[in-house]
Amino acid sequence: MTDSILNNNQENVNGSVSIIPLGGLGEFGMNMMVYETEDDLIVIDTGFMLPKSDMPGVDLIFPDIRYLVERQEKIRGIFLTHGHEDHIGALAYVLRQLDVPVYGTQLTLAIASGRLREYGVFGKAQLNTIVAGDTVELGDFTAEFIHVTHSIPDSVAIALRTPIGVIVHTGDFKFDMTPIDGKLTDIQTLARLGAEGVLMLISDSTNAERPGQMPSERSIYSAIDSIFQNTEQKLFLSTFSSSLHRVQQFIDLANKHRRLIAVAGRSLINNVRTASELGYLKVNPDYFIDARDASMFRPHEVMILSTGSQGEPRSALTLLAFDNHPFLNVEQGDTVVISARIIPGNERAIRHVVNHLLKRGAKIYHEGNSNVHVSGHGASEDLKLMINLLRPKFFTPMHGEYQNLVRHAELAESVGIPIENINVAEDGELIYLTADSCEVLGREGRSGRVLVDGKAELELEDIVLRDRIQLSEDGIVVPIIVLHSDTGDGNQQEGIVTDETASQGEHSTASEQSPTTANDAKTGLNTGEIEIISRGFVYMDKSEELMEAAKEITRNVIANLSDEQKHETETVQDEVRGALRRFFSKQMQRTPLIFPVVMRV
Amino acid sequence: MTDSILNNNQENVNGSVSIIPLGGLGEFGMNMMVYETEDDLIVIDTGFMLPKSDMPGVDLIFPDIRYLVERQEKIRGIFLTHGHEDHIGALAYVLRQLDVPVYGTQLTLAIASGRLREYGVFGKAQLNTIVAGDTVELGDFTAEFIHVTHSIPDSVAIALRTPIGVIVHTGDFKFDMTPIDGKLTDIQTLARLGAEGVLMLISDSTNAERPGQMPSERSIYSAIDSIFQNTEQKLFLSTFSSSLHRVQQFIDLANKHRRLIAVAGRSLINNVRTASELGYLKVNPDYFIDARDASMFRPHEVMILSTGSQGEPRSALTLLAFDNHPFLNVEQGDTVVISARIIPGNERAIRHVVNHLLKRGAKIYHEGNSNVHVSGHGASEDLKLMINLLRPKFFTPMHGEYQNLVRHAELAESVGIPIENINVAEDGELIYLTADSCEVLGREGRSGRVLVDGKAELELEDIVLRDRIQLSEDGIVVPIIVLHSDTGDGNQQEGIVTDETASQGEHSTASEQSPTTANDAKTGLNTGEIEIISRGFVYMDKSEELMEAAKEITRNVIANLSDEQKHETETVQDEVRGALRRFFSKQMQRTPLIFPVVMRV
Repeated sequence: MTDSILNNNQENVNGSVSIIPLGGLGEFGMNMMVYETEDDLIVIDTGFMLPKSDMPGVDLIFPDIRYLVERQEKIRGIFLTHGHEDHIGALAYVLRQLDVPVYGTQLTLAIASGRLREYGVFGKAQLNTIVAGDTVELGDFTAEFIHVTHSIPDSVAIALRTPIGVIVHTGDFKFDMTPIDGKLTDIQTLARLGAEGVLMLISDSTNAERPGQMPSERSIYSAIDSIFQNTEQKLFLSTFSSSLHRVQQFIDLANKHRRLIAVAGRSLINNVRTASELGYLKVNPDYFIDARDASMFRPHEVMILSTGSQGEPRSALTLLAFDNHPFLNVEQGDTVVISARIIPGNERAIRHVVNHLLKRGAKIYHEGNSNVHVSGHGASEDLKLMINLLRPKFFTPMHGEYQNLVRHAELAESVGIPIENINVAEDGELIYLTADSCEVLGREGRSGRVLVDGKAELELEDIVLRDRIQLSEDGIVVPIIVLHSDTGDGNQQEGIVTDETASQGEHSTASEQSPTTANDAKTGLNTGEIEIISRGFVYMDKSEELMEAAKEITRNVIANLSDEQKHETETVQDEVRGALRRFFSKQMQRTPLIFPVVMRV
Repeated sequence: MTDSILNNNQENVNGSVSIIPLGGLGEFGMNMMVYETEDDLIVIDTGFMLPKSDMPGVDLIFPDIRYLVERQEKIRGIFLTHGHEDHIGALAYVLRQLDVPVYGTQLTLAIASGRLREYGVFGKAQLNTIVAGDTVELGDFTAEFIHVTHSIPDSVAIALRTPIGVIVHTGDFKFDMTPIDGKLTDIQTLARLGAEGVLMLISDSTNAERPGQMPSERSIYSAIDSIFQNTEQKLFLSTFSSSLHRVQQFIDLANKHRRLIAVAGRSLINNVRTASELGYLKVNPDYFIDARDASMFRPHEVMILSTGSQGEPRSALTLLAFDNHPFLNVEQGDTVVISARIIPGNERAIRHVVNHLLKRGAKIYHEGNSNVHVSGHGASEDLKLMINLLRPKFFTPMHGEYQNLVRHAELAESVGIPIENINVAEDGELIYLTADSCEVLGREGRSGRVLVDGKAELELEDIVLRDRIQLSEDGIVVPIIVLHSDTGDGNQQEGIVTDETASQGEHSTASEQSPTTANDAKTGLNTGEIEIISRGFVYMDKSEELMEAAKEITRNVIANLSDEQKHETETVQDEVRGALRRFFSKQMQRTPLIFPVVMRV
């Protein structure tokens, strides 16, 4: 009892570890976990996430790393579990802001380096290659790297020895009993750790809702083999560029069936080259041809490895579907295999590609109609095995939406972890761990996400995104109000000319040919011409009446302002905006962005 | 041979039927099929479709019915197969433009009437109630209505007797051997038609990719029964408001388990009332309570029927998930059953609702983790049975994306329909049918879709949608260019004041405090002040430099124009737009809408 009180004491130096998920707990993607003692802090994984369809113009999402920037001096290093973008994709972003050493396996660092070079941070990056079995001591943390099977080679789990006990962070894993590269998940080491005593397990929840055991990567071989046997023309195989075990099987089958191999798509070309050079892919370079030369061979002599399994707009497979690829095409009788899972959110894009490939006359195989894909993440029984190997005192699920985390917590309970020792936490919460207690403390602004417009490499402010969403829903209305001194010169010609015949689109307001000018003798200012521009709101040619009414309202608003108010631009804008907002809301049930421009002449 | 030539002759009166899908062939939704002879035209179904996420601000999609409007005088009637929105949802839209009689079963017309009233066309609508077994003769077409099982009661297939033979249009169907209302698909009539000879079958492809036979609606009873048994607190059941067989089972189970029934959600309240009054739902009104009173009962005494199975933003279930419902709440230990399929595109919204219900502490059952839903559409074996019962000469699949249609065509081939007699067609194509030939002719502007902004009940032009998409991707930039006569009066004070401190958002351009004025002596026009407004483009506070450069470019463009060009507003706009488009594209890799405003003072 005294012991427990002592350990709960947050002042007790080295008596606790704070575990803070900056990403990946509550969503799929941007995995990033902080482990922190009084003196030292380490980070496991620095991933990004791809945006959802309600984030127009956003290309990437990074975790917010302010928490790290503020604690720069105590960060001892970053550990990477494997080379998937949801684990390493934010590394360049992080290293631009933090100068800390990075530890990962050879393949993981090789893949990460590509992006570091792109972002110009490769030169200053301190990259340290580890192999499974190594230990690295960084302050209060000693990391032991444990080989695990996953869809990409050279993946590791990490056992962190801390002053209060061992914490195991699984990374992504499955228990593949017949892995393509022959390297099993290191069950012996996991069992040894379990025997020695594990304080806490933090484990991958991606497939917690899938019952049973995940089949071996090798289980798809026979289905693909049979497709090779039954294909008399060109054969296109599409998968993630990082799924190197999958690519190895495709290459082996191409050799078996005497097809030459062409690779289409930049990320696949890069990864095949890197992995071949490092020995992670076993290839005979003689069997590879340049995709540009594929048409020189007879259709049954060629296999094309292609990107685009998610229907990405500019990927090779999408270009092929729309017959828009510069030097490859899909013809009647060709076969296309999409050997990848459908990432939630991409269903529609993929269906679109499949529909068009069918229109080209191709035969399509995918997860939905044949056994051409298997996941790299363990299912329920695998997750239970991991817990049973380690028998941790405390358990927290990671990697997944809330429902996956909850399901994983149920699995942990079902194998005997006491429910009070299981904590479901979300991004930004602090998991406060001592030798005999674990609790989730509140979120205190520790987490967030940074939206990136990748095209411009700019961080996108929430306000710009909010504007884009409102623009996309209801468009924009720009009232232009000319206020001018009464010069007594009635001859001056005025006219606002809007974009009536723009090549971008022909639906601006009709320009007002005979502006009504309401003189306001009281104030010395004339409320001159008023013009209203809109885009994405209503088709202006059909809405002259509406816009005339809006102009009239604007004129009345200005006429009713006092002299003093008229001199305050903000007031004019606020009044016009308010009046037009009420008008459009009542007339159209819409709320366009209203953005008044006041000109003083 | 002569016969065939004769029948292919399009001039041959009554020797052919043109079949034109205006919707539902190439997508799910907006089902609408035209059957036309020289003299007469009938329409089967008038459905709408819900928009996809890449159509911001679009609420509904209707088929384009110009083809019908142009042939108004030969349209003899509209037949409705059943009361789902993808079959009747565009009826009000159609009847606003066409004055034709409508034929449907009692329940179908009762559900359709609600929307006709909303749109103010109920008064003039000529609604004719039919029952399965009836025949209706309209010109060249005699329709026989055939009862089929589906997720909504009172559904029919239609056999059209035409001068060249019988065409069977299935509508949506399954072969449920133990239907909830005891009314089987009328296999006898289908078999009789098959024996008499069917020229053509047009059949539902929704589940063509699902192997096997679709289980009976009754198959979910035991799973739901067991959920009732294991729930000690409030029980929420969510399904489509039109899934009345499902609702009947819920009501029966509530009675069995002595729970009172509250209904939450307008469409469900309406449908339960209508179906009860007409006898399609068997209910004891004593067991219903007002949802407002639900909190007065003990949690285990209440079952709440709720809308929102698709995660619709304002539905009862979504409000409950976010603890935002006016008089109901989900508490720790409550149970929520989502008894509906996930319509493609809604995956994310549903997951969001599930995650939040889990955070409220509810236990969730859905299609993904238990047997709480079964489809109302036949799977592969059911589709084959339909073909085998009718043994049609020609076959065309309907209702589905291209891949579903192709799969259904393969199924037809597998049961012996000659491949040359199977035609996969898409919206707007003309299927030209004679007594011994069937071919698909090209699309000739016969199809299209009408996008509707439901809030405003406006048809949305494609150009407005395109603008909204561009706005949402990259925002809008409005350069304002003042061109004024050189009055020689250097004292006039000018200033464009933009929306610096707008309450809607504080990120306009900084207003230019010291405008640079480039005099252009040659032309007599001064290129005066230039201001650039943007929204949804970049966060302006951080981009002063960018905007200064853009202003400079605009100034240079104008300075380089000839006198004549400067007087042509269009030219000024085109040149400025072109220059800024190149600039932003190069600097930012972005293409905002650029919308120059030229003012002449």
